[in-house]
Amino acid sequence: MADDLIEAHEPAEDDYKLERSVISAVYAAIEAMDANAIDVALDPLHPADIADLLEQISSGERRALLGLWSMGIDGEVLSELDENLREEVIGYLPEGVLSEAVRELDSDDVVDLVEDMEDLNQERILGALTDVDRVAVELALSYPEYSAGRLMQRELVVAPEHWNVGQTIDFLRREDNLPEQFYHVILVNPAYHPTGNVTLGKLLGSPRATKLTSIVEETFRTIPVKQPEEDVAYAFNQYHLISAPVVDEDERLVGVITIDDAMVVLDDEAEEDILRLAGVSGEESLSDRTLETVRQRLPWLGVNLLTAILASVVIAQFEEILTQIVALAVLMPIVASMGGNAGTQSLTVAVRAMATRDLTGSNVWRVVRREAFAGLFNGLIFAVIMGVVGFLWFGTPMLAVVIAVAMVVNMVVAALAGILIPIGLEKLGVDPALASGAFVTTVTDVVGFFAFLGLAAVLLV
Amino acid sequence: MADDLIEAHEPAEDDYKLERSVISAVYAAIEAMDANAIDVALDPLHPADIADLLEQISSGERRALLGLWSMGIDGEVLSELDENLREEVIGYLPEGVLSEAVRELDSDDVVDLVEDMEDLNQERILGALTDVDRVAVELALSYPEYSAGRLMQRELVVAPEHWNVGQTIDFLRREDNLPEQFYHVILVNPAYHPTGNVTLGKLLGSPRATKLTSIVEETFRTIPVKQPEEDVAYAFNQYHLISAPVVDEDERLVGVITIDDAMVVLDDEAEEDILRLAGVSGEESLSDRTLETVRQRLPWLGVNLLTAILASVVIAQFEEILTQIVALAVLMPIVASMGGNAGTQSLTVAVRAMATRDLTGSNVWRVVRREAFAGLFNGLIFAVIMGVVGFLWFGTPMLAVVIAVAMVVNMVVAALAGILIPIGLEKLGVDPALASGAFVTTVTDVVGFFAFLGLAAVLLV
Repeated sequence: MADDLIEAHEPAEDDYKLERSVISAVYAAIEAMDANAIDVALDPLHPADIADLLEQISSGERRALLGLWSMGIDGEVLSELDENLREEVIGYLPEGVLSEAVRELDSDDVVDLVEDMEDLNQERILGALTDVDRVAVELALSYPEYSAGRLMQRELVVAPEHWNVGQTIDFLRREDNLPEQFYHVILVNPAYHPTGNVTLGKLLGSPRATKLTSIVEETFRTIPVKQPEEDVAYAFNQYHLISAPVVDEDERLVGVITIDDAMVVLDDEAEEDILRLAGVSGEESLSDRTLETVRQRLPWLGVNLLTAILASVVIAQFEEILTQIVALAVLMPIVASMGGNAGTQSLTVAVRAMATRDLTGSNVWRVVRREAFAGLFNGLIFAVIMGVVGFLWFGTPMLAVVIAVAMVVNMVVAALAGILIPIGLEKLGVDPALASGAFVTTVTDVVGFFAFLGLAAVLLV
Repeated sequence: MADDLIEAHEPAEDDYKLERSVISAVYAAIEAMDANAIDVALDPLHPADIADLLEQISSGERRALLGLWSMGIDGEVLSELDENLREEVIGYLPEGVLSEAVRELDSDDVVDLVEDMEDLNQERILGALTDVDRVAVELALSYPEYSAGRLMQRELVVAPEHWNVGQTIDFLRREDNLPEQFYHVILVNPAYHPTGNVTLGKLLGSPRATKLTSIVEETFRTIPVKQPEEDVAYAFNQYHLISAPVVDEDERLVGVITIDDAMVVLDDEAEEDILRLAGVSGEESLSDRTLETVRQRLPWLGVNLLTAILASVVIAQFEEILTQIVALAVLMPIVASMGGNAGTQSLTVAVRAMATRDLTGSNVWRVVRREAFAGLFNGLIFAVIMGVVGFLWFGTPMLAVVIAVAMVVNMVVAALAGILIPIGLEKLGVDPALASGAFVTTVTDVVGFFAFLGLAAVLLV
């Protein structure tokens, strides 16, 4: 134990990247088929780091490693592992190793492990559990996906409201099966409704005779068992909760959600938003194979092709003037590109503000107005610059006027599209992070080409 | 207290948005200059929600509200408030309200409050603190910005290694100034080096005679006081830490960081990445005024203008063929646009993988190869589609070949640029989220136009 502490105490590199030396040692050990050397390299690592290593090596190396070192995979490594890899890894594990790995997990971790698995693998894992645990997991799986019921653990520490500190501590000392981690004692009334949280710090710092009700936390919130997980995560983040009781429709206590569960959800949500804004399915992972990557990115590229063709159709309406004034073909992508960028900027700000619930009925019109004015100011600035550049380049004053006006028009439209489109999509129940980009680019391309070439057709012929 | 609990217990709406009725009540109360009505509306709210409300109303309403209700602003509201608004709000507060608000905060919250303030406001707040607290805050400010030293709180709960559970509980009961929230008792040796963490749950569940050293947590990590905050946040997330001791260069204990601090940093980092990828300065906030918004977005639009002009220069090299075959002008934006999108997809995946440290020396070449192949496959798919569309539209088989080949070339280049550019920028010490987008778009525009028009010039004349 003491040695372990010293090992773990000093991270090898300050930035916590997996050390190259560990990875090289593992590669060498796989090459030499030396199970003992793998054990020496991996045993000091935290399960999360072992999972990262499994994600970073190739699938061939993974098979070789697990063939040699399957007994090294415990429940924690499995639950740290990227979802896309879990079934692969479980496929390599002998029955005994899998059972042992799964039995040591809390019920919420088992739920997380099995919820997206194929039926066959799910049965294999549920079969490895004790009856009590299996029932708990099956109950959790009966709640809707992505709900509080799936996140919560059923291992609870409760005390009747009328207890004092001494009674509670004596109870905790007697209790053999306390959860691995808990942060509150939850007070319940005779109907098993949670009525308050006592932090362990307060419990430890108060005299034995103190009534629990006199030291409950000021902020106390219960989570409905069917609440969507993103709302749960929001509540933890907004109200700085560390753990919160989960209640069923009758307000009865059914479980508890802790901050680590909420943190995972918050992380996933941010990740999903980033990827979706770029037109990547939120489920893409670095360990995906090529064909999976192709499949994940294809839909958005398809949508983009349609919008690009639409823009080309707009251009095609102006073929005549394009043959007369080739400078128009040279300059037109600038107008569209500046609009696209301005639109993406205001879109991203809007989507984030919606995700963090900062954009509400009370400030939406002020934000829309601000976006429009910001688009106008930036449009004017770049109109002047491009007007000058266009004039110096092609020597035609009227061409400079055309590009300047088109620039202002497109940047105002871009700013408005960037905020109004995600708001509209959310009202329709569509995730704005997923779909807004395509619409905004379509608008800025179409308006950009139309304004520039249309003005040119009117003013330059 | 009991009433309070019931109020807070049932969130008004499941999704935790600020209720419209509250906001309307506040507006009406401001209108009527009725301080009491404001109090009735806002007093039941969590400080985080009051801060959100202050962010969502206009600056005029904010001034009116604070004029009437300045005594409602406590330290927690101030620390929940968006950084950009803190100085404005503090400006409206009478000296007495400000002092009281600041004195109730933990040292880490005061640091967070003052670190980005103008000197004058900083002095005003530091002056309101007790001498002991002021020294603690000034010490924290002496650590580098965005380091563990700025995040940690100095309020600690420590115990000598040789104590048992009973001694520790007796000590905690005697101690008057326990921190508001703590999750571990930190064991220290005689040199005041932290050597282990005991969770409060273990402390409560163990008999009084149990040695603390026998119930320490398995995972124990100390944080160097100068470690960058993003590394701290990474460690909390990766190793599921709930609190961790901070040590100075001599390994002496100087403070503790808790998960709520780490969560704020993680949140900020994800936010910054999302905004930077879209070319918005990571500091932009919804409560910014128009001119601030213009200023935040101008630089990236300027960079984009340069890259767009560069692309136009490429197009200008092909003026002759563009006048001969106007279909080229119609189709060329499609090639550039598809490349831009494919590049953004692989860029975003790469930047996220770098942020979560999943892209490392051991898998980088496998990921690069995967991106190249994914680009090739998607390129081939869309080449066929666009070849057919181009042929049906313009009836020229060779034009279809030109756009198909250009599409494949640009999408492979886009995929490679999307991963190699952020890797290169990180090696140079530049934040890839900030700068990659401009480079990738430049590459896909230039290559897209050059490949398409260049091929056309060779094959179509």
